Amino acid sequence: MNRITARRKITRLTVGERPLASEDLLAVEEPLEIRVNGRRLAVTMRTPGNDIDLAAGFLVSEGVITRGDDFNSARYCAGATADGVNTFNVLDVTLGAGVTPPAPSLERSLLTNSSCGLCGKESIDAVRTKSTFKIADDPVRVTAESLTTFPEKLRAGQNVFEKTGGIHAAGLFDAATGELLVLREDVGRHNAVDKVIGWAVKENRLPLTGTVLMVSSRASFELTQKALMAGIPVLAAVSAPSSLAAEFAVEVGMTLVGFLRGNSMVIYAGGDRIVDAQRSVHAA
Amino acid sequence: MNRITARRKITRLTVGERPLASEDLLAVEEPLEIRVNGRRLAVTMRTPGNDIDLAAGFLVSEGVITRGDDFNSARYCAGATADGVNTFNVLDVTLGAGVTPPAPSLERSLLTNSSCGLCGKESIDAVRTKSTFKIADDPVRVTAESLTTFPEKLRAGQNVFEKTGGIHAAGLFDAATGELLVLREDVGRHNAVDKVIGWAVKENRLPLTGTVLMVSSRASFELTQKALMAGIPVLAAVSAPSSLAAEFAVEVGMTLVGFLRGNSMVIYAGGDRIVDAQRSVHAA
Repeated sequence: MNRITARRKITRLTVGERPLASEDLLAVEEPLEIRVNGRRLAVTMRTPGNDIDLAAGFLVSEGVITRGDDFNSARYCAGATADGVNTFNVLDVTLGAGVTPPAPSLERSLLTNSSCGLCGKESIDAVRTKSTFKIADDPVRVTAESLTTFPEKLRAGQNVFEKTGGIHAAGLFDAATGELLVLREDVGRHNAVDKVIGWAVKENRLPLTGTVLMVSSRASFELTQKALMAGIPVLAAVSAPSSLAAEFAVEVGMTLVGFLRGNSMVIYAGGDRIVDAQRSVHAA
Repeated sequence: MNRITARRKITRLTVGERPLASEDLLAVEEPLEIRVNGRRLAVTMRTPGNDIDLAAGFLVSEGVITRGDDFNSARYCAGATADGVNTFNVLDVTLGAGVTPPAPSLERSLLTNSSCGLCGKESIDAVRTKSTFKIADDPVRVTAESLTTFPEKLRAGQNVFEKTGGIHAAGLFDAATGELLVLREDVGRHNAVDKVIGWAVKENRLPLTGTVLMVSSRASFELTQKALMAGIPVLAAVSAPSSLAAEFAVEVGMTLVGFLRGNSMVIYAGGDRIVDAQRSVHAA
């Protein structure tokens, strides 16, 4: 069974024309339960495929692991259903020796300890405190011309989008060469990013100095947070960032580019890393 | 202070041209902590505005309330920060008499009780069990021509998108007249839908018989789940649905339309409610 796309019967309808019964491929969405040392950590709705990368990247985003050795192994939990079928939707991760498992109550948002005065600034501080890597000093440079080639490279690598039109992608690029290092797709953009970061941590490549993370979507606070946790100095998005994503990027020294389309872009933070923009007045 | 958009300094850069320092409006993203009777229930990253609708809709989606009287009042929690400032990011909801408060461990996903065999089918069953409303028998009909006017009506009402290009919208339409009943915007599409449903429950309009929920995004399982919890019989999306959204729609008798653009659409479930498609072979 192909678990990444699903074929369904549909009706295509155009006003004034005869309805057309047909078939369509949809991006699969299924729950994945991530367990750590046998204990449930989180459930996320994701597109099956690269689940181990997803789990590893999730653990990086949550500040649990930073090195390949921290992630010992992962196996699908089987046989616990009445009919003994393995749904391949429950993944149990074993951490490396000496790695502190996350608290069972850990929430994805990292916001569990915020006070009644909860605000964006506190969210930023909470993430900054949790991060092992400092990206502000990463001397990476990337040309605007190179950046403008990334959306097309991302799109060209998107197998599932091509078929379904309904899935996000995240790609990691080498800033110096413009080479696409890895691409992952998922119905959830945060999952696509976790899959990229999980691939990298398993390859023991963290911090991801000298790289650009490109996403097919908007740039939310959550995505900038994930980039920081993996030590990625540049985040580029096809669409708009949120205010908090821009604020966070400035605070942690991340380069944030939005509306990267055609041969132009908008720089929201860290413009000094983009070669062609170096003589301009940058966003503070 | 305008808390829905934020002005930031940016640099516009086009390859081969001189960088242009400028300013841009971004959609604000800030955390909202929802408390029920003084106890924390959830934290969501949202665009400020219609927070009380958001909280009320969230409580509908989670199966806690279904009537206007169930939602007694809500107030922003103030004075607990060191400097005594109210961030307007913590909202304490008081439920009506006799309403059972949610368990403190409630997760947004409704998937907390799933077993090791976790799969999409179980997710569907969990939501179906939780829902008070049956939408399968809703005799509502809508013409394809009317449906094709919804995206433009939605876009026309989107104040914040117009300014920022970075925000989702959800709109509730009267299926018979095509009238837009309410529109809400948010950086998170699930929040935009919760705000619409929250408006409706406060007006004591649940179940939302005879309505169409239109979203500016893809249709995920989570959105179909929210539509069911509010008794909405028709969900229409500008972009693609996921496989589980389509499966769920078929199982609960919801009409699901995707790729609603220009004068055409794709019908994934419940095509018998769309007048012009009645003579075709529908998705089972």
